[in-house]
Amino acid sequence: MARIEQELHGVIDSILADYRKSRTIDRMDLFSRPDKKTVINILEKLIRIIFPGYFKDETYRIYSIENNLTMVMEDVAYLLNKQIVVALKYNKQDEGSETSCEEKAEEIVLAFLREIPTIRAYIELDVHATFEGDPAAANEAEVIYSYPGLYAITVHRLAHALYKLNVPIIPRIMSEYAHSETGVDIHPGATIGKYFFIDHATGVVIGETTVIGEHVKIYQGVTLGALSTRGGQSLRGKRRHPTIEDHVTIYSGASILGGETVIGEGSTIGGNVFITRSVAPGTQISVKNQELRIDQKGKHVKQIDMEEDDSWFYTI
Amino acid sequence: MARIEQELHGVIDSILADYRKSRTIDRMDLFSRPDKKTVINILEKLIRIIFPGYFKDETYRIYSIENNLTMVMEDVAYLLNKQIVVALKYNKQDEGSETSCEEKAEEIVLAFLREIPTIRAYIELDVHATFEGDPAAANEAEVIYSYPGLYAITVHRLAHALYKLNVPIIPRIMSEYAHSETGVDIHPGATIGKYFFIDHATGVVIGETTVIGEHVKIYQGVTLGALSTRGGQSLRGKRRHPTIEDHVTIYSGASILGGETVIGEGSTIGGNVFITRSVAPGTQISVKNQELRIDQKGKHVKQIDMEEDDSWFYTI
Amino acid sequence: MARIEQELHGVIDSILADYRKSRTIDRMDLFSRPDKKTVINILEKLIRIIFPGYFKDETYRIYSIENNLTMVMEDVAYLLNKQIVVALKYNKQDEGSETSCEEKAEEIVLAFLREIPTIRAYIELDVHATFEGDPAAANEAEVIYSYPGLYAITVHRLAHALYKLNVPIIPRIMSEYAHSETGVDIHPGATIGKYFFIDHATGVVIGETTVIGEHVKIYQGVTLGALSTRGGQSLRGKRRHPTIEDHVTIYSGASILGGETVIGEGSTIGGNVFITRSVAPGTQISVKNQELRIDQKGKHVKQIDMEEDDSWFYTI
Repeated sequence: MARIEQELHGVIDSILADYRKSRTIDRMDLFSRPDKKTVINILEKLIRIIFPGYFKDETYRIYSIENNLTMVMEDVAYLLNKQIVVALKYNKQDEGSETSCEEKAEEIVLAFLREIPTIRAYIELDVHATFEGDPAAANEAEVIYSYPGLYAITVHRLAHALYKLNVPIIPRIMSEYAHSETGVDIHPGATIGKYFFIDHATGVVIGETTVIGEHVKIYQGVTLGALSTRGGQSLRGKRRHPTIEDHVTIYSGASILGGETVIGEGSTIGGNVFITRSVAPGTQISVKNQELRIDQKGKHVKQIDMEEDDSWFYTI
Repeated sequence: MARIEQELHGVIDSILADYRKSRTIDRMDLFSRPDKKTVINILEKLIRIIFPGYFKDETYRIYSIENNLTMVMEDVAYLLNKQIVVALKYNKQDEGSETSCEEKAEEIVLAFLREIPTIRAYIELDVHATFEGDPAAANEAEVIYSYPGLYAITVHRLAHALYKLNVPIIPRIMSEYAHSETGVDIHPGATIGKYFFIDHATGVVIGETTVIGEHVKIYQGVTLGALSTRGGQSLRGKRRHPTIEDHVTIYSGASILGGETVIGEGSTIGGNVFITRSVAPGTQISVKNQELRIDQKGKHVKQIDMEEDDSWFYTI
Repeated sequence: MARIEQELHGVIDSILADYRKSRTIDRMDLFSRPDKKTVINILEKLIRIIFPGYFKDETYRIYSIENNLTMVMEDVAYLLNKQIVVALKYNKQDEGSETSCEEKAEEIVLAFLREIPTIRAYIELDVHATFEGDPAAANEAEVIYSYPGLYAITVHRLAHALYKLNVPIIPRIMSEYAHSETGVDIHPGATIGKYFFIDHATGVVIGETTVIGEHVKIYQGVTLGALSTRGGQSLRGKRRHPTIEDHVTIYSGASILGGETVIGEGSTIGGNVFITRSVAPGTQISVKNQELRIDQKGKHVKQIDMEEDDSWFYTI
């Protein structure tokens, strides 16, 4: 380490000089920012409030549910209020508004906490949709403990409530945390109805302006996305993602794109289907055929054209 | 915080009222449940038992391997026994059985721990399959330390052993933890033979009743799934997922679906192939062509039809 | 627990016997190995050095940026040096080289730390590319805090610098940690130019010998892979992955395979396109059509052939 000790000081000086370039990544003391770890800590406490009997917390040793809830709620209110003040102040620098961030934050925290019973009512129905929809689910506790799709929608319903209250940054930190835990990327802006179920939740993308009805079931690898985001920031705030009406099922790998695309009530979208236009209610769409080349033991035997023999291979 | 302090009590009361609705998410004191954090802690200790020289644990400071193993094993036996008792009791409420959960749990724990040398023998072969199958692997330590596919199959082999011993909930918590760490969703019920290798492990789904032979290699995005789970809980326990025989390779994005689908020995399934019927041994299947529209500098130049020019683009 | 207590000793003995089989997973005291937890700890400290104002660390309470940086840098230098010595010694066993691992490690650590300003310059541009490319991004802080694509490229730029300095094992542990956090699997060997943006980062694979130019944007599910790795370890070190030139956009689910495949400057590769040959600069490629079978209310209505009606469905 002798050489490192000698030369490290010079390296540190060059990094300090690099910090003075005033780029985005150099910003430091102009204003505070939300703290990612605290936001995730708040999220974990909120999940315990949603499922009071399911997740233990060693930091709360009082066993009456009233006392326990009071302590967790006081913590959440205190921490969330502080983070929201910071996030609002961070955002205000762009706008120069003079309303008190402190006052606004208190209002938001109370409005959000009052939403909890409504959020819980939705999540209860998501638990039912998940259990009833999956023959591999042994019981509802297994769903609550271990289904990544349920975790993703739970976090989404919390983040979406904060998003609707115009909280900056914090909802996205929550939803991207769920994304990293599950591979399910639901933007906090997406509107999702009751009884939502993502099976084998992984590789799923649901964009910011998506609107999803009730009793919708989607599978791994489904994208509800934008047609093209080549416009970048110029598209900000515009409707870019599809509408999925009630009782629609979307199988694995399907992509449904575009802000004017509406998948009508009761439709089924097959695996790997790629859709950029609207579909009437009650429609079943599947990839009609997939021409396959088949060789056996090194020799080319047959080209199966699905038009001729569409019973051989088919899509759901 | 003044306003929050005033009004928080009312919010807490409304949540407490909401907890009294006796829905799934309201269940609290009727019975205990397994603790997710403890189950993950057990899993991490088991992984250290599997690879004794690879993962350090700061909580065990005794350096003789005998003493170290004894301490970890005692911990695992104690914690696992407790969690299995709770899981069995949770399940028994549905059945009303009178056999002693405590006795049954002890039997299961011993049977499971006795399986460890067999599980280790399988995992040794998975390490070889992974190292030999991947030109990007520099050495076997790199595989053990960093390959998500090896992690996923290691957790699966442990969870599957508990699943076969009819342990409720716990195997699924383990496999969904591996799913969240890797993007690989292997149901603990799946049967997987020796020398299994998942390359670029992410976005992989292997359903509950899948049976996989020896020397099988699969890539990212592969689904071994059910044809339709529209039947939901009515399909519970039925064979819904495919059989993959020995020496089969399945390239990225392929989907193989259905409980009667058998991929015969030595077959190769190309990228993005979608299969719902059986395939004879020694078959190579690929998507025969993909019609592409090609435009250059804004002008449409050519539509390449693979039938005419199948050397230009092809699938593996 | 009585029965477990009686029989546990026998089980432990059988596992100890199993450890004596000298297989890969049995190796224990021949040599030391890098410690995964320490490597991840180093990585987290490096990320704080990259973004000095964004991530707090409770273990460093000194608030002057000079003192704070000095402490983090001293920690990183000390820990990284130790891990690199161990990794070099682990590797040397294969080679029998006699150069001092300690000396070599010091050189590598200093060379790596001196790279930090250059790495930061690249990451600043990645932040801009991400913010400007995504209409859902509210501000740059949101990008730095929560975008998995930015996290993946940040870790990659650090791991790649270590990879270029021929550090064994450690770069791969870092990149696989990012893989597990994001679903983005970038091998530390891949060369990636300025202004790189992965949107909805999940399910992405970028192989070891991939070369990517500047201003490249890719989406979820994209694979930049090898044609076939059937050769396994015999392909080690050979060019197996594609070249992506400047200003290329690759939409979701596309696969570009092969070491001789070059995607020319300014090209756009549509969703789900599968490419194994080179593409001239300025080319737009999309899946020309996808034949869909459409049924309404149980009745088969129409087969839409995209040749006839290519306005109805199209790919980006």
